[in-house]
Amino acid sequence: MVRPLVAGVLASFVWVGNSTTSAADGPSYTPAGLMNYPSDYRQWAYLTTGLNMNYTSAGDPNHHMFDNVFVNPSAYRSFLQTGTWPDKTVIVLEVRGAESKSSINHRGHTQSAEVMGVEVHVKDKALPGGWGFFGFDDKHTPAKMVDRSESCYSCHEMHAAVDTTFVQFYPTLLPIAKQKGTLSPEYLKEISAPAKN
Amino acid sequence: MVRPLVAGVLASFVWVGNSTTSAADGPSYTPAGLMNYPSDYRQWAYLTTGLNMNYTSAGDPNHHMFDNVFVNPSAYRSFLQTGTWPDKTVIVLEVRGAESKSSINHRGHTQSAEVMGVEVHVKDKALPGGWGFFGFDDKHTPAKMVDRSESCYSCHEMHAAVDTTFVQFYPTLLPIAKQKGTLSPEYLKEISAPAKN
Repeated sequence: MVRPLVAGVLASFVWVGNSTTSAADGPSYTPAGLMNYPSDYRQWAYLTTGLNMNYTSAGDPNHHMFDNVFVNPSAYRSFLQTGTWPDKTVIVLEVRGAESKSSINHRGHTQSAEVMGVEVHVKDKALPGGWGFFGFDDKHTPAKMVDRSESCYSCHEMHAAVDTTFVQFYPTLLPIAKQKGTLSPEYLKEISAPAKN
Repeated sequence: MVRPLVAGVLASFVWVGNSTTSAADGPSYTPAGLMNYPSDYRQWAYLTTGLNMNYTSAGDPNHHMFDNVFVNPSAYRSFLQTGTWPDKTVIVLEVRGAESKSSINHRGHTQSAEVMGVEVHVKDKALPGGWGFFGFDDKHTPAKMVDRSESCYSCHEMHAAVDTTFVQFYPTLLPIAKQKGTLSPEYLKEISAPAKN
């Protein structure tokens, strides 16, 4: 499925199904430039999970959703070494419903079998602006890049801790970014400002 | 670190740091039979995350905790094929605090940098009963197996969906267990009974 012209030379070992194969784990596109669904992301490196996250104060507090975040293994290994993301980084946000009182669990929330959405953030110097968002409706339909005028881009640029990504929510990576000195000026300004309530 | 006499022949590719190496990903023990801390588990296969889960109705609802679950890659691959766990399966439960209003997140919860606990469930025919629980206080201190008389064992035996493990909470694995016919008699009885509120 990977198009060599686009995916480049980022070959690495990924484990898929019952065999270990050598393959690129970067983004894959159709000839028309749509992104193919990253079908192996549940076997990538896990970054974090949030519940009911919202960047505004609006929203329905009775609508419970988990979001799980994964990244392709070659990009994860690179971050551990450098504190930032290499070209061809693919970050996947998977959204699932939050169930209550499932099986013997009496309190709190567990994750639903149904995936409510998959959104992808890709670092690729071939894309306008160097990073692109792609939202997938299903596994079988390649996605068009979200237009650069959408607010997701400006929000990430203004608030994200490292290279327009929300490393402040990735508990194993934030200490590495601090150590390597890769925190963004915008984030450093935010954490040095008095808290607003 | 892996003791060949105990870890056996479950060699598989795992990616650690900056290199891809061939190594066993099963449990590792000290000569005295204590389990060594599974230091690479954040690079294993991710299974699920719950928030504030509790198997009784008791507990403080203001005490917010996430639990993230991981399994060693060779056991994950085996489950995809068979619907159950092979010998030398290592399931890790990582507990983190749930933070509110962190950075630009205004609602819901994100995960704390601090790990509040790591508990491990190991399938190993060399252990009494075939499965053992181990709780780690820190990364540097090997853990003693939790005594077989503790309630964690009987609860898992009475309620878990597959082979004493809570696959009912692992959204990508439950459909496989259904398809392969590996759901436990206890779980099948539970889901066929009228709901109790």
